Amino acid sequence: MIWSPPAYAWPAGKQAAACFSVDVDADAPYLWATRNGRSNTLAVPEHRSYGMRRGMARLVNLLDRLNIKGSFFVPGGVAEANPDLLPGLLERGHEIALHGYGHELVNDISDQEFTEALEQSIELFVKQTGQRPAGFRSPAWEMTPHMLAELGRLGLWDSSLMGDDVPYTLQDISEIPVRWDIDDAIYFKFLGAGEAPPRSHLEIGAVWHSEAQAALRHGTLFMMTIHDWICTRPARIEMLEALWRPIVENDGFWCATCGALAAHHTRHVEDSHTPNDQGIS
Amino acid sequence: MIWSPPAYAWPAGKQAAACFSVDVDADAPYLWATRNGRSNTLAVPEHRSYGMRRGMARLVNLLDRLNIKGSFFVPGGVAEANPDLLPGLLERGHEIALHGYGHELVNDISDQEFTEALEQSIELFVKQTGQRPAGFRSPAWEMTPHMLAELGRLGLWDSSLMGDDVPYTLQDISEIPVRWDIDDAIYFKFLGAGEAPPRSHLEIGAVWHSEAQAALRHGTLFMMTIHDWICTRPARIEMLEALWRPIVENDGFWCATCGALAAHHTRHVEDSHTPNDQGIS
Amino acid sequence: MIWSPPAYAWPAGKQAAACFSVDVDADAPYLWATRNGRSNTLAVPEHRSYGMRRGMARLVNLLDRLNIKGSFFVPGGVAEANPDLLPGLLERGHEIALHGYGHELVNDISDQEFTEALEQSIELFVKQTGQRPAGFRSPAWEMTPHMLAELGRLGLWDSSLMGDDVPYTLQDISEIPVRWDIDDAIYFKFLGAGEAPPRSHLEIGAVWHSEAQAALRHGTLFMMTIHDWICTRPARIEMLEALWRPIVENDGFWCATCGALAAHHTRHVEDSHTPNDQGIS
Amino acid sequence: MIWSPPAYAWPAGKQAAACFSVDVDADAPYLWATRNGRSNTLAVPEHRSYGMRRGMARLVNLLDRLNIKGSFFVPGGVAEANPDLLPGLLERGHEIALHGYGHELVNDISDQEFTEALEQSIELFVKQTGQRPAGFRSPAWEMTPHMLAELGRLGLWDSSLMGDDVPYTLQDISEIPVRWDIDDAIYFKFLGAGEAPPRSHLEIGAVWHSEAQAALRHGTLFMMTIHDWICTRPARIEMLEALWRPIVENDGFWCATCGALAAHHTRHVEDSHTPNDQGIS
Repeated sequence: MIWSPPAYAWPAGKQAAACFSVDVDADAPYLWATRNGRSNTLAVPEHRSYGMRRGMARLVNLLDRLNIKGSFFVPGGVAEANPDLLPGLLERGHEIALHGYGHELVNDISDQEFTEALEQSIELFVKQTGQRPAGFRSPAWEMTPHMLAELGRLGLWDSSLMGDDVPYTLQDISEIPVRWDIDDAIYFKFLGAGEAPPRSHLEIGAVWHSEAQAALRHGTLFMMTIHDWICTRPARIEMLEALWRPIVENDGFWCATCGALAAHHTRHVEDSHTPNDQGIS
Repeated sequence: MIWSPPAYAWPAGKQAAACFSVDVDADAPYLWATRNGRSNTLAVPEHRSYGMRRGMARLVNLLDRLNIKGSFFVPGGVAEANPDLLPGLLERGHEIALHGYGHELVNDISDQEFTEALEQSIELFVKQTGQRPAGFRSPAWEMTPHMLAELGRLGLWDSSLMGDDVPYTLQDISEIPVRWDIDDAIYFKFLGAGEAPPRSHLEIGAVWHSEAQAALRHGTLFMMTIHDWICTRPARIEMLEALWRPIVENDGFWCATCGALAAHHTRHVEDSHTPNDQGIS
Repeated sequence: MIWSPPAYAWPAGKQAAACFSVDVDADAPYLWATRNGRSNTLAVPEHRSYGMRRGMARLVNLLDRLNIKGSFFVPGGVAEANPDLLPGLLERGHEIALHGYGHELVNDISDQEFTEALEQSIELFVKQTGQRPAGFRSPAWEMTPHMLAELGRLGLWDSSLMGDDVPYTLQDISEIPVRWDIDDAIYFKFLGAGEAPPRSHLEIGAVWHSEAQAALRHGTLFMMTIHDWICTRPARIEMLEALWRPIVENDGFWCATCGALAAHHTRHVEDSHTPNDQGIS
Repeated sequence: MIWSPPAYAWPAGKQAAACFSVDVDADAPYLWATRNGRSNTLAVPEHRSYGMRRGMARLVNLLDRLNIKGSFFVPGGVAEANPDLLPGLLERGHEIALHGYGHELVNDISDQEFTEALEQSIELFVKQTGQRPAGFRSPAWEMTPHMLAELGRLGLWDSSLMGDDVPYTLQDISEIPVRWDIDDAIYFKFLGAGEAPPRSHLEIGAVWHSEAQAALRHGTLFMMTIHDWICTRPARIEMLEALWRPIVENDGFWCATCGALAAHHTRHVEDSHTPNDQGIS
């Protein structure tokens, strides 16, 4: 119970932060869900291929127009199947980070399998880009103490949990919190009859705009997450542009990658000499 | 069948009432649901910790700005885990009331277990605050005749049912009725993929505003219920402020806690010498 | 396949029709669903009692202000438990009609049980009001050929199906068609956690207004159905008033009860000497 | 991974394309779902008969007012039960194409059963119209490599998948992509209690308008799909008119049938001598 939590210390002159993050899932969740037996139906894999065929190009062009850098979380398997993906993103100045190897769901795997997938992904990133990734986001945004411990062992930040609305520290890991309510998949993902129909991008754009402007007034982090094949349809891309234009044009916002946020948080915690581990008590 | 129910007698000069109530569930429903075996996953408990880390402070600040007192229903277990919660709320002038010990669901427990949880909660409230609580709200808003009888035995009012839109009497208990459609959880609670996505706080704010203004014209009680970790995100707090500003500024509204409403109802029933037990016939 | 269906012949000077219908279910569906064993929980029956305590009075007052007559479909059991309900509605000039005895669901009962419930309901209506009801609406809007045959045998019209948007004839029965999308229950009914949350009455009011105005331009029947305990909360009653005000003020609309529509349809069919049985082929 | 996909080459002077497609399902999905045993209940078949009784006429009148031609996908069984359907559509200048025989769902049938249903449907189309259909859309929009191969063998284009937002080539078949989010059924189809309630046609009309205008700016195909009995209620027809009026009045849009799009795509691919098979890799 923190009755008067101190305002988070953003870089000088900044009132709040905003991060444009992308979970580049492509067909990885489909391959994971059907790993024990796959039918030969094409609707879902074709639908999920939209990002690689069309959506990613539209997205990086949008980021260029906005003049900001995105944080792209890429499963190892997606990088392997699309070998110019990681180099192409780095070349354009974006951040790339880990997102499992095969989009493994935490409840489906053992601790050891998690560690293996993590190390295998790091190896692939190094091989494809020559660089070691600095951060991780869990597929489906689930974590365990083992996973946090492994991130700590490998010196990685995390961006998977939502216990606060500013960066915080959990098991000595810098946590850059996400938000389900600013994720495109829960509103727009639709892969077949029986699922809840997509919500209006006009409505969700207004909700997210309201959250971004409130973040500015409350000094919090506006963390948005979209997916390569979902929020890249023409009208949704235009919604994103309308959402982000007032953010990038407002000097009060620090538009930062997850990595920049984590680095700032680490310095901030060290500077204050007050470890703010607000873990589960 | 009441063809011409009399207008409810609010205090002199008041046309309607409004109550800002908070069910401070924190992680209690999660602990209850997993009481027989808990995985080590962190997403849900971290998400639910948002209220204690961040949301509650934002909420009491909002109530200060609005200059009204809230009614906070707190499970015993949440008070135990956060020992400055009840004293902190009382110190700020808010009402605290009972909400089960471990957020026990009525269908999961026996009559005796209900009574034990109720008495154990009262004991804890007295121990932490020196005061005996005066009212109760059932976890998940379910009641039985046994529960009503126990509230009667212990001299408590209830706020769990929705058979009317003004205070009423049921088994000699003052019932301060709630409304599912003015509860934040059914619209905004989202704990993981597969659940219905959150609704727009802009849309729900407009719906609630419409209900509040209609309450004024119909002489009813506008009873709103929110939760510590759900409606405390920045933009939702701003929605609440926009909703309540015209309520508190309208002299026709009696902004009252559940306890004040129950005390008024008891006097009203006694004064009229007409017991209006409108129980199930 | 009717490429050019003729315009429906409304009474002279009228372009379209509108009907304000009410399914007075009260607690009947709950009693039916729990007929083989009922817990002692109070939330659902209390919630469903709102219509009899509060909603029905508000509704008949609204109809008085609008100066129109409603069509009230009342299960026999609800009439039995509320003996001044049918007489009270008749006294105010409204239409009352059949809606099963215990809100029996078609898939739960035999043909014979349907017939018994129907005859038992007619008997009760006659006993309580001295009048024989002229029409029927099936609980949950399901029908069978047996049910239509029984309505024919007893000389009753039906209002349960949606194969057209003007009155039509099916198995020689006048069918006054309903519409799921202009029913309050599918949007607003909410009886407990896990159900889909209520939709905005502001949004649904706009949808229904759009349908009413389109009915005028297309010469169809705007058939609205609400329930005693659902659409009678203050703001929803105000939505209904805003919806119906432009309907009753437009001379192009024939505001009629189901019975008046059925009587018109019978005359219309007889006059044209062209039976338009558009049954299932 | 295509970082800079070339703009699709629409006919001279056109920036984008728009297609008004109709899946004329009528009662075929109901007959398929109940093929192993049908109750005698009438609600669903009556509701589904609305298109043949009323909706189709309203739809072809709308297309006449808009002065465009639609692409109608008709299951063989629906054509057989309504023998003036295919000739009537052809007479008005619309395109008719294949949609299974009994709206067979891909997961319910063998490869051989698919082939038989396809050949049987072609035979019926030829018998009823004297013309051989040129294209296919799968019931429920699912495909397999076998189905694509059979379309290739029979010289048919396909319109069932969504891997791009312009026509593309898959297994040498011209694919005219569909979109779940511009389909009326997922938003408006409602056949009984327990289903998700219909969304507002005002909201969906705004979403689709936004997508159509974005298609113009992004050079993509605006492919809309509606159903005979769903989007033909009066207010939804008016929504469609308001949606399509600015499309047909904008010279930048090429309003084309699926067949015209497929023919253009074939010429385009042949002209460029660059087969753009963007199949699953």
